[in-house]
Amino acid sequence: MKLILDAMGGDNAPLEILKGAAMAVSEYPDVELALTGQKDTILALCEKEKISLERMEIIDAPEVVTMEDPAQSVVMSKKNSSMGVGLKALAAGEGDAFISAGNTGALMTGATLLVRCVKGVKRAAIATILPMENPVLMIDSGSNVTVSPEYLLQFGILGSVYMEQLFGVEKPRVGLLNNGTEEHKGTPTLVEAHKLMANCPVINFVGNVEGKAIPFGACDVLVTDGFTGNVVLKTVEGLSKFIMKKLKGIFMSNTKNKLAALMINSDLSALKKSFDASEYGGAPFLGISKPVFKAHGSSDAKAIKNAVRQARDYVSKGVSAIIDERITSGLAPAAEIKTEDKKEN
Amino acid sequence: MKLILDAMGGDNAPLEILKGAAMAVSEYPDVELALTGQKDTILALCEKEKISLERMEIIDAPEVVTMEDPAQSVVMSKKNSSMGVGLKALAAGEGDAFISAGNTGALMTGATLLVRCVKGVKRAAIATILPMENPVLMIDSGSNVTVSPEYLLQFGILGSVYMEQLFGVEKPRVGLLNNGTEEHKGTPTLVEAHKLMANCPVINFVGNVEGKAIPFGACDVLVTDGFTGNVVLKTVEGLSKFIMKKLKGIFMSNTKNKLAALMINSDLSALKKSFDASEYGGAPFLGISKPVFKAHGSSDAKAIKNAVRQARDYVSKGVSAIIDERITSGLAPAAEIKTEDKKEN
Repeated sequence: MKLILDAMGGDNAPLEILKGAAMAVSEYPDVELALTGQKDTILALCEKEKISLERMEIIDAPEVVTMEDPAQSVVMSKKNSSMGVGLKALAAGEGDAFISAGNTGALMTGATLLVRCVKGVKRAAIATILPMENPVLMIDSGSNVTVSPEYLLQFGILGSVYMEQLFGVEKPRVGLLNNGTEEHKGTPTLVEAHKLMANCPVINFVGNVEGKAIPFGACDVLVTDGFTGNVVLKTVEGLSKFIMKKLKGIFMSNTKNKLAALMINSDLSALKKSFDASEYGGAPFLGISKPVFKAHGSSDAKAIKNAVRQARDYVSKGVSAIIDERITSGLAPAAEIKTEDKKEN
Repeated sequence: MKLILDAMGGDNAPLEILKGAAMAVSEYPDVELALTGQKDTILALCEKEKISLERMEIIDAPEVVTMEDPAQSVVMSKKNSSMGVGLKALAAGEGDAFISAGNTGALMTGATLLVRCVKGVKRAAIATILPMENPVLMIDSGSNVTVSPEYLLQFGILGSVYMEQLFGVEKPRVGLLNNGTEEHKGTPTLVEAHKLMANCPVINFVGNVEGKAIPFGACDVLVTDGFTGNVVLKTVEGLSKFIMKKLKGIFMSNTKNKLAALMINSDLSALKKSFDASEYGGAPFLGISKPVFKAHGSSDAKAIKNAVRQARDYVSKGVSAIIDERITSGLAPAAEIKTEDKKEN
């Protein structure tokens, strides 16, 4: 298969992207890569750093979407950016998936406008793994700040297919993030979403899930709007860092503690690493008709390799086709429920 | 001063409440307590457990609001509950503050209907201390699931007075919880709230705050709606527990690690305790015209004593009067801004 990789997106582009590309190609014999970006820059850097371009081609793209560019730039002022060119190549069938560590908003806008959503899907969403007791897929984790009950239902279906296919979870338990477990809890949108999800035949809905239950395996797929998802994701990130910093403070506070730290150093590093979501690869934009993956902005070569692996698994398992089918069968009854509700009102 | 205490509310009532009451009275010579609850039960228990009732009176209340009762019960079916009787006594001026570890929803509904909001305040909110690098007051942390921009502005004013008066923070930095720091970020409600807060002369507004910045002292008062606040509060609670559990797993995994754990045991216990918000006393219902405090449902005697201390400080510093004054001067210009905005549209 051929995967398209944005060579210019992310804090450490292009060097770490190119190194990651080389690692991926060497590790996955079935993968070819098409790199989008400034051809001369890429060639010069690969020569200087002795990075092999075996099984890679370069699609020249003179511009770069920066983190400061508005989301629309990829289809407006920066059509010829590495991101714009890559998305167009994906839409045209010149590759099987697109991976970028660049501007998230621009990538979502570009993917929606250039690659389009799956038929029937109202809004694509960013799905991110929270590294907890079991991996939890949070969807939406940042894209749709306001949502409708139907969006939330669709997020549940999309996330469910992803966890089933990519993480081998049978009948993934889908939870709705809420401020209480009772079904009447939350905003009117959440109350209505709860009804839709409880009646949807293609998801294993386990009801409302509270924040305190997230780490302890309450669900495999955590459905929420992009605002709450973003706040939760960043709170988890900040709090993990904060606690690790506090621990470090304890371990460095005196000689006895320093000795204790030495004794368990490797285990603590493993704990710290277990909170590193980049181990799980990129975050898929679920609901886009072809696979688009967002790697973390600060991705190093290994994180890029992991994102390529995730995209490869997605393609080889035919996840897009399964999503198509599941959305079609999942939404029919939801539409019926909505009609019934309207009749009652 | 006389503080009214719900003797029947909370998981450990009435025993731990009564013990906490006795601790508070013995520690704070200026405090008298009025306990609301089943008089015979209280008297019998105090005799059996040898709990002194010095400087305490009992206001008999035959009913108890349970955690399962609907929020309206305190003013409907259970008017004569320890909570209902306590709130009515506060409204009638028979005490200076009311403290309960009972049903949060019922307490807020009862406080709003029986004690009423400060003049000009649209909605009261629960304010909770997050125990981070510096204590952060999150308001609303659970009451108002949907909010208007003006509610959020008022939460900022209320929280600001609280941190200034109770925690001695000069010009508390007020942040708006959002999914990005730029002023255009978030829902339309948040964009509008940002404008109101930036133009409010009685708060020190520092702009939008992301989840990852909460632990690291980005602000002293974190303004949010009650839905997001509840999710954040519970996520922080769950994640802290989860990380502490993981640490315990590391420390118990082999003999070497067990030895290391022994060496730093007291420091780890201190770390665990630093995440215990009950050290900070009860959560005030800010915006209610008289002081109402919610102690955690699982409060033990010490947590009750801390909640009594917090209520005592609130009363002795005259926080209610300062809130009255600050709301009046804070809202006048906000109203002008709104009028200007309307003219433009």
